[in-house]
Amino acid sequence: MSMHKTSSASSLGPGGLDLSRAFFKPIQSAAPPSPTKRHSKISVIGAGNVGMAIAQTILTQDLVDELVLVDANPDKLRGEMLDLQHAAAFLPRTKIIASVDYAVTAGSDLCIITAGARQIAGESRLNLLHRNVALFRNIIPKLAHYSRDSILLIVSNPVDVLTYISWKLSGFPSNRVIGSGTNLDSSRFRFLIADHLDVNAQDVQAYIVGEHGDSSVALWSSISVGGVPVLSFLEKQQIPYEKQTLENIHKEVIESAYEVISLKGYTSWAIGYSVASLARSLLRDQRKIHPVSVLSKGLYGIDGGEVFLSLPAQLGRGGVLGVTNVHLTDEEAQRLRDSAKTILEVQSQLGL
Amino acid sequence: MSMHKTSSASSLGPGGLDLSRAFFKPIQSAAPPSPTKRHSKISVIGAGNVGMAIAQTILTQDLVDELVLVDANPDKLRGEMLDLQHAAAFLPRTKIIASVDYAVTAGSDLCIITAGARQIAGESRLNLLHRNVALFRNIIPKLAHYSRDSILLIVSNPVDVLTYISWKLSGFPSNRVIGSGTNLDSSRFRFLIADHLDVNAQDVQAYIVGEHGDSSVALWSSISVGGVPVLSFLEKQQIPYEKQTLENIHKEVIESAYEVISLKGYTSWAIGYSVASLARSLLRDQRKIHPVSVLSKGLYGIDGGEVFLSLPAQLGRGGVLGVTNVHLTDEEAQRLRDSAKTILEVQSQLGL
Amino acid sequence: MSMHKTSSASSLGPGGLDLSRAFFKPIQSAAPPSPTKRHSKISVIGAGNVGMAIAQTILTQDLVDELVLVDANPDKLRGEMLDLQHAAAFLPRTKIIASVDYAVTAGSDLCIITAGARQIAGESRLNLLHRNVALFRNIIPKLAHYSRDSILLIVSNPVDVLTYISWKLSGFPSNRVIGSGTNLDSSRFRFLIADHLDVNAQDVQAYIVGEHGDSSVALWSSISVGGVPVLSFLEKQQIPYEKQTLENIHKEVIESAYEVISLKGYTSWAIGYSVASLARSLLRDQRKIHPVSVLSKGLYGIDGGEVFLSLPAQLGRGGVLGVTNVHLTDEEAQRLRDSAKTILEVQSQLGL
Amino acid sequence: MSMHKTSSASSLGPGGLDLSRAFFKPIQSAAPPSPTKRHSKISVIGAGNVGMAIAQTILTQDLVDELVLVDANPDKLRGEMLDLQHAAAFLPRTKIIASVDYAVTAGSDLCIITAGARQIAGESRLNLLHRNVALFRNIIPKLAHYSRDSILLIVSNPVDVLTYISWKLSGFPSNRVIGSGTNLDSSRFRFLIADHLDVNAQDVQAYIVGEHGDSSVALWSSISVGGVPVLSFLEKQQIPYEKQTLENIHKEVIESAYEVISLKGYTSWAIGYSVASLARSLLRDQRKIHPVSVLSKGLYGIDGGEVFLSLPAQLGRGGVLGVTNVHLTDEEAQRLRDSAKTILEVQSQLGL
Repeated sequence: MSMHKTSSASSLGPGGLDLSRAFFKPIQSAAPPSPTKRHSKISVIGAGNVGMAIAQTILTQDLVDELVLVDANPDKLRGEMLDLQHAAAFLPRTKIIASVDYAVTAGSDLCIITAGARQIAGESRLNLLHRNVALFRNIIPKLAHYSRDSILLIVSNPVDVLTYISWKLSGFPSNRVIGSGTNLDSSRFRFLIADHLDVNAQDVQAYIVGEHGDSSVALWSSISVGGVPVLSFLEKQQIPYEKQTLENIHKEVIESAYEVISLKGYTSWAIGYSVASLARSLLRDQRKIHPVSVLSKGLYGIDGGEVFLSLPAQLGRGGVLGVTNVHLTDEEAQRLRDSAKTILEVQSQLGL
Repeated sequence: MSMHKTSSASSLGPGGLDLSRAFFKPIQSAAPPSPTKRHSKISVIGAGNVGMAIAQTILTQDLVDELVLVDANPDKLRGEMLDLQHAAAFLPRTKIIASVDYAVTAGSDLCIITAGARQIAGESRLNLLHRNVALFRNIIPKLAHYSRDSILLIVSNPVDVLTYISWKLSGFPSNRVIGSGTNLDSSRFRFLIADHLDVNAQDVQAYIVGEHGDSSVALWSSISVGGVPVLSFLEKQQIPYEKQTLENIHKEVIESAYEVISLKGYTSWAIGYSVASLARSLLRDQRKIHPVSVLSKGLYGIDGGEVFLSLPAQLGRGGVLGVTNVHLTDEEAQRLRDSAKTILEVQSQLGL
Repeated sequence: MSMHKTSSASSLGPGGLDLSRAFFKPIQSAAPPSPTKRHSKISVIGAGNVGMAIAQTILTQDLVDELVLVDANPDKLRGEMLDLQHAAAFLPRTKIIASVDYAVTAGSDLCIITAGARQIAGESRLNLLHRNVALFRNIIPKLAHYSRDSILLIVSNPVDVLTYISWKLSGFPSNRVIGSGTNLDSSRFRFLIADHLDVNAQDVQAYIVGEHGDSSVALWSSISVGGVPVLSFLEKQQIPYEKQTLENIHKEVIESAYEVISLKGYTSWAIGYSVASLARSLLRDQRKIHPVSVLSKGLYGIDGGEVFLSLPAQLGRGGVLGVTNVHLTDEEAQRLRDSAKTILEVQSQLGL
Repeated sequence: MSMHKTSSASSLGPGGLDLSRAFFKPIQSAAPPSPTKRHSKISVIGAGNVGMAIAQTILTQDLVDELVLVDANPDKLRGEMLDLQHAAAFLPRTKIIASVDYAVTAGSDLCIITAGARQIAGESRLNLLHRNVALFRNIIPKLAHYSRDSILLIVSNPVDVLTYISWKLSGFPSNRVIGSGTNLDSSRFRFLIADHLDVNAQDVQAYIVGEHGDSSVALWSSISVGGVPVLSFLEKQQIPYEKQTLENIHKEVIESAYEVISLKGYTSWAIGYSVASLARSLLRDQRKIHPVSVLSKGLYGIDGGEVFLSLPAQLGRGGVLGVTNVHLTDEEAQRLRDSAKTILEVQSQLGL
């Protein structure tokens, strides 16, 4: 079923009234546009709360010429497409297409995957993961088939394992397979620090790296405010601080995702802005540094196998351009390796 | 319960570490900012799908210095507030506050009311309306109390009657009480025409006026594309068209709201963009013309009483600056008066 | 001489310090980006007041991934490039390149030509035109050589003749050769009407078409405000108006260009915004309608030869998509044909 | 002479045609807007290249509801005003006013002073300064008179001395008198580092502080890229670097201003973006940290008198909210004190 944008206005057609042809006259000596001219195109897989918040933010920020939605539920999908299209008069023109058929994703520059199975009451995490892997076995090869040069950006959880799986299933080079990872965790971290200091969160630099979730690693030495490194500032000013205080902030970051879910049932807005910001850096070649899940084998002593973890990576039109050579303390590096080990064990049970 | 933005970062406090005071030094001879300096502030009442789509679009478009959310459900409210706050690093700095207590709305420049009772199975429309009136009796006097100079923008349905009720309950001058009315209907109308002609919807002018809903009036003579009036174009080009064709487009507009609701369960994105566009015209004094619900008594022969209907109105910092003197055919004017009569009958049953 | 962006930071190099390589680590299994992935690129020819206002507005509006400046004066050129580059921290990342060598324009999606000879005291207009034709004989073939699929947007005056000449010299299909024409005249027209009515100029539709300059044609019937056609409104309301009043507005539009030049020595800001708006419609495929100079042969009875005149044209990624079938009065059409005849006579003297 | 925006469209008036009154109808029970409702307003003093680049960037970024230009040359002033107004159709509505009379600045939230005398060949720097002080004696008291609550932002050079003078002449508290200082120097510094590392300049943090000009102080320890402090990174990675290399970068920053002036005759674009970014932080209460010239007495051992120097300051609606407690090496602090001493000596010769 293809729900092409133009199909919705069929009622204008009857009666042989071809307004468009009457309304515009061609000019002489014109030629069709060159076939090499192509638009920028993003496909969002999964039209749930996360996928739609991402799609709407991308639309508002005028990032792309064509936006495609794919979902297994044709009704939900058509409802969301129409709801976005009805705002056309308030937005720059973007072609919005929705379909259950992956053929509409052909020629995407970026595919953002938000689809995922929901946990059934009493279901083990491993069983849920097996179901998600089965889902990705259906999604990723189709995306790779229709858009051989695309970048894949994985948002579904557990994001690190599913990014690895997407890499394997797509056969893409590793720079074109990225997980949204701790980009949002780091944003929450920056908000909490900014809120406390009453500064603009955009003036706060602070990374959470490693596994997205409970075992993530807060890089304390990376915190700076307006360019002032906070830890060394405290040391130089001889201001005492308790390690416990810092740990509490990190704990609050981890808990805040759970808190939002327990309060409103899901998260949407922040992940929407977070992923739209990654999409901008990628498609507009911004070469900005974001903490995202990348193939980390060989970095920081991670040598047990192919594993994706979040590290500050420079993103541009080519995907991952490199990983920032950030200094980790021995403890931080060890925690990173521990996370890698845990993830590798999970991956070994998936039989890929 | 006040969920002030700064309350969420309390874990940074313990241990006597007042980072903020250590981090910034005061300069000499400084003075506190003048009390007359005030920020722009919008309050959104109702944190459901519509209210949150409006709030998020206002935030993305950087319309305001302070954004307040009020809802009866404190959990949902706090979840939505946190979800928006977590995006701080991706957005210009906006103070986001949420509370069940209307005191946080004090000094608002604009209050947007999206709260509304849901229809109970088997409930009559009149009974639903009675319950909504009761809800507004609770909301509007509080908003008027805390923000005597605010503009009220009503989004809840039935929008025309509830805008009238808000006007009565607030005691505000009529230029400061506005219903979102047919602004979204007109946008859908413009999208359908633009989609058919393959033009940019921003180049299409077309109004739907009157009652928001099934009895709305499409102003055929108002349709122009790129400045070319479509109906007179067709006449001059001697292109025949069936009145039925035009009616079908209007029918499709009316049905599209129902269609989105039946498909995804509610509408959100388009109403979000639509109301944010009204908020911009009002707060940034854009003096743009939008079809919105305004006090229509005395216009186009509407003389039976005080009734709010959508007409193309010029909006600016003072609210409604005037109603465009658009030409209606006799039939269009009659349909407008018929709508007015129906609404007045409903209003007479409400005992205000 | 190539003044590539990266050449300016050479002082970081000495001492064998390759910071970049130390700062970023590669990830494993990465592959270089596909050669078919290309950025959007605009070249601006001529770094005078007009060219720089255009370049700066394009930069501010984040329209393009790469911006190229070409001028015959290497000092002025490098000064302007550095001045734009120094703002990098305040803008989305855009690659800015400047050179006297047209090779840097290779692969442009859009070339905007603002270069032009200045009138020498006592020089005839025809002599000036001959010198400009000589200039374009140097510019256009180089642009066409380096960017075979580019759109050419001519801003230099006399714009209609120079657009024709660019078409001939490039060998491009007519839809890819456009003159900025009366786009700015129409904007001035809209401002004057909006200013008088105290409405937003974006709510005013009004076209000036034909030859850019003194013989331009104001389409009175095209004026609408908030979708209300003004002339037919005045007729229906039986409000008398003098034809002379309307002519005065048109006269004021024509004079305002001269007035700005006499007061500040040149025009820059308005033409900058005007051309940036055309660039957006073209490169982001906005399919919006703008009055620009297009090949008008065969339209409105213009049959004497190949002539470019401004008409409301729909612009998109393919260049001119069509000309709006706007209704002209007999007098308006006759004035258009008269302009065409005058331009054709000039063109016949150029020996192309 | 007042060149009010609405005065330019007078030709629509003759013939008794009051279109505006016919075009809009009032609604019943309306009331005029409350007098306490006020727009945001910026006045730019000096309509030269710098003042106009600032004004145009502020306009493009939609920062303000009313923009006022003041200059001593009425022709230049009117030309610039008209040139900006003619772009109305491409921009959000902003009221643009220009006059030689400071009364039009009444009620400004921010006054940006770019006016300055030009150096006469052979004139000593001190003599030039005396002439600029005389100019400021004319400007500042008028601005302070018409806008008692305004923030003053000084751009004219020598910026540190003229900011001090503006503070004295205005009688304003020190938090409301700011010099653009080394904000642009720091931006050039960030560009050079970003360009070398091929990263986004927005990911680079780096401050130049102290006196704007040749004796400015580069804070090497403040350089971080993507949150990674560069100097300590080099140390930890045991990458050797020459102090001379770092000094060369600083030298290049200082020279780049001279270079742009020698090449194009003046600087405009970068200072325009730089000052617009300060205006945003101030008026939209962004609480961002910028290196700007503030009253530095009592900071970093500067105790010889009242002197303005650039330090990383947090800016918001109240002006300077505080100075970041950045760590300076002994050498850096000494250079800052040396600059302070030099400036104080100059100030002592001015007889204020």
